[in-house]
Amino acid sequence: MDKLHAVYTFIDLAGTFAFAISGAVAAKEKGLDIFGILVVAFTVACGGGMMRDVFIGAIPPAGLSDWRYLFVSIVAAIITMSLDSFLKLFNRPVLLFDALGLSLFAVSGAEKALAFSHNNEVAVLLGMITAVGGGVIRDIFLNRIPVIFEKEIYASAALLGAGVVVAGHYWKLPNNWIFLAGFLFCFVIRLLALKLHWELPSFSKEKNDPVNK
Amino acid sequence: MDKLHAVYTFIDLAGTFAFAISGAVAAKEKGLDIFGILVVAFTVACGGGMMRDVFIGAIPPAGLSDWRYLFVSIVAAIITMSLDSFLKLFNRPVLLFDALGLSLFAVSGAEKALAFSHNNEVAVLLGMITAVGGGVIRDIFLNRIPVIFEKEIYASAALLGAGVVVAGHYWKLPNNWIFLAGFLFCFVIRLLALKLHWELPSFSKEKNDPVNK
Amino acid sequence: MDKLHAVYTFIDLAGTFAFAISGAVAAKEKGLDIFGILVVAFTVACGGGMMRDVFIGAIPPAGLSDWRYLFVSIVAAIITMSLDSFLKLFNRPVLLFDALGLSLFAVSGAEKALAFSHNNEVAVLLGMITAVGGGVIRDIFLNRIPVIFEKEIYASAALLGAGVVVAGHYWKLPNNWIFLAGFLFCFVIRLLALKLHWELPSFSKEKNDPVNK
Repeated sequence: MDKLHAVYTFIDLAGTFAFAISGAVAAKEKGLDIFGILVVAFTVACGGGMMRDVFIGAIPPAGLSDWRYLFVSIVAAIITMSLDSFLKLFNRPVLLFDALGLSLFAVSGAEKALAFSHNNEVAVLLGMITAVGGGVIRDIFLNRIPVIFEKEIYASAALLGAGVVVAGHYWKLPNNWIFLAGFLFCFVIRLLALKLHWELPSFSKEKNDPVNK
Repeated sequence: MDKLHAVYTFIDLAGTFAFAISGAVAAKEKGLDIFGILVVAFTVACGGGMMRDVFIGAIPPAGLSDWRYLFVSIVAAIITMSLDSFLKLFNRPVLLFDALGLSLFAVSGAEKALAFSHNNEVAVLLGMITAVGGGVIRDIFLNRIPVIFEKEIYASAALLGAGVVVAGHYWKLPNNWIFLAGFLFCFVIRLLALKLHWELPSFSKEKNDPVNK
Repeated sequence: MDKLHAVYTFIDLAGTFAFAISGAVAAKEKGLDIFGILVVAFTVACGGGMMRDVFIGAIPPAGLSDWRYLFVSIVAAIITMSLDSFLKLFNRPVLLFDALGLSLFAVSGAEKALAFSHNNEVAVLLGMITAVGGGVIRDIFLNRIPVIFEKEIYASAALLGAGVVVAGHYWKLPNNWIFLAGFLFCFVIRLLALKLHWELPSFSKEKNDPVNK
């Protein structure tokens, strides 16, 4: 269990790191100043978890009270700002880390909601919110429609991962198996969606609207 | 009282239904994918109530913990996506249901704040926030200025309905009368505003700004 | 101490007033109606404090439960709507009041978080969030990238002021000195930044993007 915990911590911080990089890259491209980049990086990495904590009454949110989240976000933002060539090299790993972070946050969000004695629906919805909330805030800050509403299997993978966790607890499966199953379910779906360019159908009436990208 | 409760439940779900349809229609027009449409529909229907619950400490928000809100939102979104001709037929009823939902949420928001022992100002403001909060989040997601700030007597009707509820409790009127009076006050004002094209005055300096609609 | 408290109250309401004016001016320029202007004015003045209160569990937020915040916001919005020439005369004092409000909210946000027994990181981050949160919500409502991410030493001044407060409590300095030092630190940095046009560096790839200003 200790080894699992160490793995958990490593992936958790890796997920925070990857989300912070995705926020910093987007903020930099929009021409924000250094402080703006730091804030957006931190927000993407921790915003979803902060929403979850407010909704379940875990006050103050871990993103504010645990210094490691802030620290990892700042490191990721500094790397993004200083190392352009490093980042190009890093392009595929970012997608990988992002999928890792998504899967882990979906599982840990659902677990935390259950640990606070909330019902199954709350746990599934909050697993998803934890995983995607930061990205939604990022896009609102950068003044565009949240990309998760428009493209790819992303939030839906998180929803399924959180659903697996809740189902596992409902059927009283062993904890470690629940954790791994939820994580792998979300992770594999997300990677397959990236690899095979899966997309959910949409209704393209205004798709070529020139203003909103 | 039981009959009143049944009526309340019916109108509450009808309001959720109408708000979810308005969210789904807007999301569909923006070209979001199926998942985006579901999320926006759910958000419009439940976002205002979730804000209220966070502000009064009713954790977790009912929108997350009561499955009926999610269920009705999904049904409304599916109808919106599959039945275009049905919706055209439904155009005026949507406005009617929307006004019903607005009025009911204004009353129930104020009632819930008072039930949690908060003061009158909190109850009036949260009545309004419950009624309009979902629509504001919808417009933020869809990357436009919240329409309630620009057009028609809408939030102000909710504010007045919530005010009637609070005044009724202040003067210790019977509960059922308070409920009905607040509801009717908001509902009639809203319908008259729709019918007679009432608008609040504005200052049209940038009205013909081509980017922000 | 009583005299200090009176000074505190005066500056607090002055800060609320200045922030409400900045919100009302921006909303008026966007062509919002009267109600929209009132809401944006209130939001800028109280939004940051409401976020802080939700994060530390001070429910309901003071902005909703203390009528003076609402009252001052409404007065500021009415002045903005009715007195154009007055406002032109007021241009420099607004920047001064805004800097006063920023500094005071940074200090009071950090103090309130510590008073609720939260740790130092929470206090510093919430001092900043209290000071700038309202402005961020204003810009999201008005459909633009929050200006604090793009221009000037603003949020960073608030962060430093909150940091001084937390450092002062860590070293157990006398309360009044902590309060004054944090306030003056933020205030002087902000005024110098305005006077000398200090800006944080940015990466101007998309700076001449015609859509997002």
